[in-house]
Amino acid sequence: MSAASKAKRDDPDLDVVVFEKGQWVSYGACGLPYYIKGEIQSLDDLVSVTPEEFCEERDIDLRTGHEVVDIDPDDAVVTARNDDGDVTQAYDALLVATGSVAVTPPIEGVDREGVYTLGSMSDGKELREYVARARSDGNLQQPDRGPACQFLETCHGPVGIVGGGYIGVEMAEALAANDFEVHLFQRGGRVLKPFSEATSEAVLDHLAGQNVAVSLDTEVRELDGDGAVEAVVTADTRVPVEMVLVGTGVRPRTDLAEAAGVELGETGAIATDASRETNLPGVYAAGDCAEAEHVVTGEAVYVPLALTANRHGRAIGRTVAGRPTDGGGVAGTAAVKAFEMEAARTGILDHDVARDAGFEPITESIEAKSRAGYYPDGGTVTVTLTVDRPSGRVLGGSLVSEYGEGAVHRSHAIVGAVTEGLTVSELSNYDLAYAPPFNTTWDPILTAAKVIDGRR
Amino acid sequence: MSAASKAKRDDPDLDVVVFEKGQWVSYGACGLPYYIKGEIQSLDDLVSVTPEEFCEERDIDLRTGHEVVDIDPDDAVVTARNDDGDVTQAYDALLVATGSVAVTPPIEGVDREGVYTLGSMSDGKELREYVARARSDGNLQQPDRGPACQFLETCHGPVGIVGGGYIGVEMAEALAANDFEVHLFQRGGRVLKPFSEATSEAVLDHLAGQNVAVSLDTEVRELDGDGAVEAVVTADTRVPVEMVLVGTGVRPRTDLAEAAGVELGETGAIATDASRETNLPGVYAAGDCAEAEHVVTGEAVYVPLALTANRHGRAIGRTVAGRPTDGGGVAGTAAVKAFEMEAARTGILDHDVARDAGFEPITESIEAKSRAGYYPDGGTVTVTLTVDRPSGRVLGGSLVSEYGEGAVHRSHAIVGAVTEGLTVSELSNYDLAYAPPFNTTWDPILTAAKVIDGRR
Repeated sequence: MSAASKAKRDDPDLDVVVFEKGQWVSYGACGLPYYIKGEIQSLDDLVSVTPEEFCEERDIDLRTGHEVVDIDPDDAVVTARNDDGDVTQAYDALLVATGSVAVTPPIEGVDREGVYTLGSMSDGKELREYVARARSDGNLQQPDRGPACQFLETCHGPVGIVGGGYIGVEMAEALAANDFEVHLFQRGGRVLKPFSEATSEAVLDHLAGQNVAVSLDTEVRELDGDGAVEAVVTADTRVPVEMVLVGTGVRPRTDLAEAAGVELGETGAIATDASRETNLPGVYAAGDCAEAEHVVTGEAVYVPLALTANRHGRAIGRTVAGRPTDGGGVAGTAAVKAFEMEAARTGILDHDVARDAGFEPITESIEAKSRAGYYPDGGTVTVTLTVDRPSGRVLGGSLVSEYGEGAVHRSHAIVGAVTEGLTVSELSNYDLAYAPPFNTTWDPILTAAKVIDGRR
Repeated sequence: MSAASKAKRDDPDLDVVVFEKGQWVSYGACGLPYYIKGEIQSLDDLVSVTPEEFCEERDIDLRTGHEVVDIDPDDAVVTARNDDGDVTQAYDALLVATGSVAVTPPIEGVDREGVYTLGSMSDGKELREYVARARSDGNLQQPDRGPACQFLETCHGPVGIVGGGYIGVEMAEALAANDFEVHLFQRGGRVLKPFSEATSEAVLDHLAGQNVAVSLDTEVRELDGDGAVEAVVTADTRVPVEMVLVGTGVRPRTDLAEAAGVELGETGAIATDASRETNLPGVYAAGDCAEAEHVVTGEAVYVPLALTANRHGRAIGRTVAGRPTDGGGVAGTAAVKAFEMEAARTGILDHDVARDAGFEPITESIEAKSRAGYYPDGGTVTVTLTVDRPSGRVLGGSLVSEYGEGAVHRSHAIVGAVTEGLTVSELSNYDLAYAPPFNTTWDPILTAAKVIDGRR
């Protein structure tokens, strides 16, 4: 919808047709955990522009309930299927924005009733209904019921979460806030793996103080039950649950494009050039189905996040309206709220990835006060920087703080450093804003840069 | 003390001697408004490193109560005066860090009792004592007393503040929080003049909702009284007050250096090269007495703020310990809290200054939500960018938001853009962190860059 809107705004003479399989367009899927939590009252609140506004105000021919089933690049025609049959549409330029689909790992019982993923608005609706049902049933569990309710005197659930990434952590918050006892199972050794170890540890410590039992290095073997899911089974234990959320990532939805001869990259997502054009002339791809170039390595990566989708969509809109536009690369930046903590990461933190790109990475973390030490409020910001030792170039960063203490907004500075190829020495000389209610004289970012510059 | 500490740490064999006229060293003067407000309980809390720690742990020969009265650059000797007479000290390298002195404008009665400035720890002590005295007197004024207590049923004071800069605004908060009725007089047409007009207006609107009466375009003609100050007299009115704070800026304290032959720059502060060395070899200057180079124009400017002093001090410490170090330029970055608002500015916002530097400036401001529109909390961030129209280069920025909504930490990104000479187009493609509890998909900074890029 970003591409459609921008193309139409830049060139009102264009005929812009959008086919959408479902009924929802232009919605903030990132808000779903907060809808399920109960902080947002209606799914409609997540919609930034309604279908009516697209049609009537923006003059875009939006056709919901139309699934594109074929792209014929030779004749430049797409075929879409709706309840009334098939329709064809010729095109001069085509954008494939088919998004991603939640990955469900090959666990026995993953298809049972009571097992959810969270990718779409309808997923969000179902999960909210589950929460409402469990709460209105009033069947609060008592602490003497085995592993349930370890933390609360009474609780709903228990429920299981498979995966300790963004969705897993955000949904742990959403469910715990509704008095569910939450068991989170993470295959690897830490939560929020794309972040630094220091960030993961800080979030893990925080989760332990909430209504969440985290099992690390724990592979889920089976989701057991007699019909609906009743237990999460691991090598060591069998945890009774009433519901399971699987949040183990997404993969690009590429079938349609592949069938038309669109080439995928090594990541498995659609390969494009800097203008987001695929190997088929006039066929573009953007969003969760497509690759993007990493600003540090220049390599194609698959980082399916909202801003990139919006930005590349907008760039394609400009391009097809006559102004060829490069929507820019990605730094792999991401942010997450985890209960009363916040965290952000950007760039390259993984040493193997850095070495593959020709760097000699070192990583340091510092803990610093988030505001002047004498200022009455404030907490701690932990800043991790990964740096190329010989050159001092900033490759990546990860920050974590209490919610409201600025880890996420501070990460903006590190995005700049990563994108511009700054050295830690240059970063440490930045004239960043300072006043006691906001930071120490040297903002934690400057302190981190100074410290790692001294140790490399 | 930054220079002393760094020099000694890098080369423990150095003999480092520090002469300080007063008794306080290494204190956070920026915290004084919060001490006066009552949020910080002791002046000692503002001290980051005590004299004892400098002497005993860092092996620095710190001599408080010693005023340097002469620098003899030919013989490389300084003379310091203390209660016991004069002492001399030879040096290989000398740092002049004499700071700044509060400017008092030539207003009749500015020397009266009850008229204060805020520059030093002892100023802070006096002001806190005044607040405590007025409050413990219990002489709350009644609303029928003329212009006093326009806002509160009862109040202390009234008090006057001359100047609407950082100190004026921060002290308005400190005094209003103690139930003083505050009258703020600003000679120019807006408060926080170094910030953008949009920022000034947002803060002014906010002050109006607090216990502060702001008079813009108002020159104070006299501080009247029979002995102690009793009224602020302007062209139009005579406002009864019990106390006046004059916060009309600072000037560099350069007498000592000038007498020794150290050259000043056009700004009136001490001129240095990139290593902070003055025209006298081996004599350095840093902090509020010295100039620095602006990262946009390369011109020498006088921006006396805490981080620059710290950073340049540290760089000099490294330099004299054998590693020549450029402490970097300044972007003129500053932050301020004003009651429940926060603001930051960086770079060049003034069109005359920009034109003098060869740019063709345009300025735009945008208002945007500070968090996702559907997220339950959040407010508004107003972002101003000043850009060179032909090139699109970001020259400066100014941000304002409710306190806690991230104007200040977000400014970090604009410091980077200003320092690196980014265009708004490049900035608008930055992969900044996004999640609903922290921003909209396009952070307000990106939106501002996009908007101004479209209008230039």
